[in-house]
Amino acid sequence: MVTPIVRAILINTGTELLLGDVQDAHLAFIAREILPLGLRIEERRTVPDSEVIRRTLVELFPHCEILFVTGGLGPTSDDITREMVAESLGLDLRRDPELLAWLERRLQVRGIKWSSGIARQADVLAGAEVLPNENGSAPGFYLKANINPRIPSPHVFVLPGPPRELQPMFKKFAIPILKSIITGPPQVERRSYSIAGVGESLVENAIGRKVLAIPGIELGYCARPGEVEVRIIGAPNAIAGADAIIRRELRVSIFSDHGEALAAVVVNLLKQRNETLATAESCTGGLISNQITNVPGASEVFLAGYVTYSNSAKSDVLNVDSELIEKHGAVSEEVARAMADGARTRAGSTYALATTGIAGPTGGSEEKPVGTVYVALASKTSKTFVMKFRFLTDRETFKQLAAQTALDLLRRKLLKESDVHSERSGGAP
Amino acid sequence: MVTPIVRAILINTGTELLLGDVQDAHLAFIAREILPLGLRIEERRTVPDSEVIRRTLVELFPHCEILFVTGGLGPTSDDITREMVAESLGLDLRRDPELLAWLERRLQVRGIKWSSGIARQADVLAGAEVLPNENGSAPGFYLKANINPRIPSPHVFVLPGPPRELQPMFKKFAIPILKSIITGPPQVERRSYSIAGVGESLVENAIGRKVLAIPGIELGYCARPGEVEVRIIGAPNAIAGADAIIRRELRVSIFSDHGEALAAVVVNLLKQRNETLATAESCTGGLISNQITNVPGASEVFLAGYVTYSNSAKSDVLNVDSELIEKHGAVSEEVARAMADGARTRAGSTYALATTGIAGPTGGSEEKPVGTVYVALASKTSKTFVMKFRFLTDRETFKQLAAQTALDLLRRKLLKESDVHSERSGGAP
Repeated sequence: MVTPIVRAILINTGTELLLGDVQDAHLAFIAREILPLGLRIEERRTVPDSEVIRRTLVELFPHCEILFVTGGLGPTSDDITREMVAESLGLDLRRDPELLAWLERRLQVRGIKWSSGIARQADVLAGAEVLPNENGSAPGFYLKANINPRIPSPHVFVLPGPPRELQPMFKKFAIPILKSIITGPPQVERRSYSIAGVGESLVENAIGRKVLAIPGIELGYCARPGEVEVRIIGAPNAIAGADAIIRRELRVSIFSDHGEALAAVVVNLLKQRNETLATAESCTGGLISNQITNVPGASEVFLAGYVTYSNSAKSDVLNVDSELIEKHGAVSEEVARAMADGARTRAGSTYALATTGIAGPTGGSEEKPVGTVYVALASKTSKTFVMKFRFLTDRETFKQLAAQTALDLLRRKLLKESDVHSERSGGAP
Repeated sequence: MVTPIVRAILINTGTELLLGDVQDAHLAFIAREILPLGLRIEERRTVPDSEVIRRTLVELFPHCEILFVTGGLGPTSDDITREMVAESLGLDLRRDPELLAWLERRLQVRGIKWSSGIARQADVLAGAEVLPNENGSAPGFYLKANINPRIPSPHVFVLPGPPRELQPMFKKFAIPILKSIITGPPQVERRSYSIAGVGESLVENAIGRKVLAIPGIELGYCARPGEVEVRIIGAPNAIAGADAIIRRELRVSIFSDHGEALAAVVVNLLKQRNETLATAESCTGGLISNQITNVPGASEVFLAGYVTYSNSAKSDVLNVDSELIEKHGAVSEEVARAMADGARTRAGSTYALATTGIAGPTGGSEEKPVGTVYVALASKTSKTFVMKFRFLTDRETFKQLAAQTALDLLRRKLLKESDVHSERSGGAP
């Protein structure tokens, strides 16, 4: 029996990871899954498909209480993790006839030819608990602590490499075992808050000192283009106190407390209100509509997107007066407003968002430098609202910042429409 | 002096990595940058911002020839890498007045308030070569092997955590130093090929056995939605042989041999031909136009994108006959063709791509199940071409597959127009 917080270590095997050809997804997944149990990964090692696996296992056995090993369970010759674990723990590998029959059926159904390597996936570590793989052919293993009495060892979980195999296996089979290993109630909780419309330093100014005054709380920030994620970790009562501070200080700037994308929040607000949206994008080039249509069911609220990159498209599709473009330039408050109005009228939607700006790296002028962007929101009930920003960054980040800003503008508008008293800390519109 | 291949190790510091809040990007970047020099990362350790950094440094000093350490150089109290390196090597930290003045100016320009932690970023490891940070405030360091004669140590590179700071610093300052450390010509080369329109198993069938017959070649595949990356590593003459096989067998299915995005290839082909493009997207929801407008200079060739999610938008903007939609359904060959034609006419472009399909998870029928998609290509010179696919996957991957398929359709068309003899292995149109 292990009491939280214990010392857990993760070993990722895979030469492809060290060559930079594949990005590891296991650390982030496992870390988030085990934190509610009071468990943390305290170190992660990435090692090649070689002898280094065994050396690393032997080295780490005395240094941790729980060890996760991922990858190298497949059928090809460089998949050697099963053998390395067996050798380092002095355990036999036994071909399991039931597993072998299951593998044969599996391949038959899929019309895949049998090869000698495939049979190795039916090799089971003596004394291990098999973790069934419901999304692939290689099962995982759980080996209890000191499984070979002659070799002191931690609890070892051996897991397959592909994330779509590992993740469901972990949730269904590893988590219950971990719960049985760990005694007592979980001593830490984790919460996160997604924040838009406020920069990282302002978020820190608003909550940092107050939250950190709570004993035993850990506070972290992660800034992504156009949003800040705040995470807190601590005992349940510390979390409750921090949660109250964060919600009081950041109010409507928090758009999700469960990792939802900003576009999903907007789509759901529109659905609730039975309202619709159109977009007119110049500099964001379709990113806003792409984010919106990533949300399942977006078709209920999203009528049309107009990516009017050229001036003639702005006039033709959105009915923007070409003289207006000539007079003020395509990147201007006036054109942004006309684009939003044109899109709303054309689509017959409740709202329309428009963007026009200079993403760069070229196309800037002294008056309108690279990074300048106008974001407009047209609605059925209010005057069309335009905001100007300057984002000094690379092209793709610029597009993300502009898209997030536009979506957040609409989100705040929708919240205000739903409850005029819900907002205090302001923000447009 | 070190001869390739040497033993290089990477240490990523950062509690946020171990909590799963941030994904490491350094391993993949550094691994790809150093491979042309004949260098590989042979092990990677991810450690928290704690004493573990020092323990890991001391442990690894005798075990490698080159050590990269990332992260923990910032101004906050959990940034302790500089101190840990100093302690483990017995080196003093000296505040550099020039660096301090530079930091002060930097903050002033940005209107950021001075805080005591910031000054720590002007602390320099005694004897180290400072690697200037042109994209942030914390400089990096290079420490030559055995910098403190009393403590045997490898060449150590200490680098900042944010990728947009580390990456340019690495290319500009670390690579030249690495070149001076490593003697002799590089003994391995790496090449990669991006392939569209052919699945992973067909790629493997086409080249696998032949390439692996070359002694000393390493061959790897990495499948992403709508594309396969083939990589080869080996001695220059082995690479030349493998390269010839891959190009002969895969021909025009290779869209890039230097990691370019498919959209960038299409934009550049259009630029070369002085031609233009419009898009009409239903199920891809703006993803195609978003990918195209991610390419700098896309405005030269991309005129307009119409994201016609609703049927009325298809009729209104693209002039698709509403009776046609009623008769065949919005997801049909006929409507896909009409959308492409309508977009090309409306925008006045040389080409137009259209997509209509059922991304799911809902909206399918027995006749047209979830995953069905029609992709159409209209052009000035040929009859409009429509292809039908079925992609059984999640919503976002479906969109990516449909977008890649559409872009590849256009790419092959453009290649054919440029040289009717360049294609043998077929593929549409």
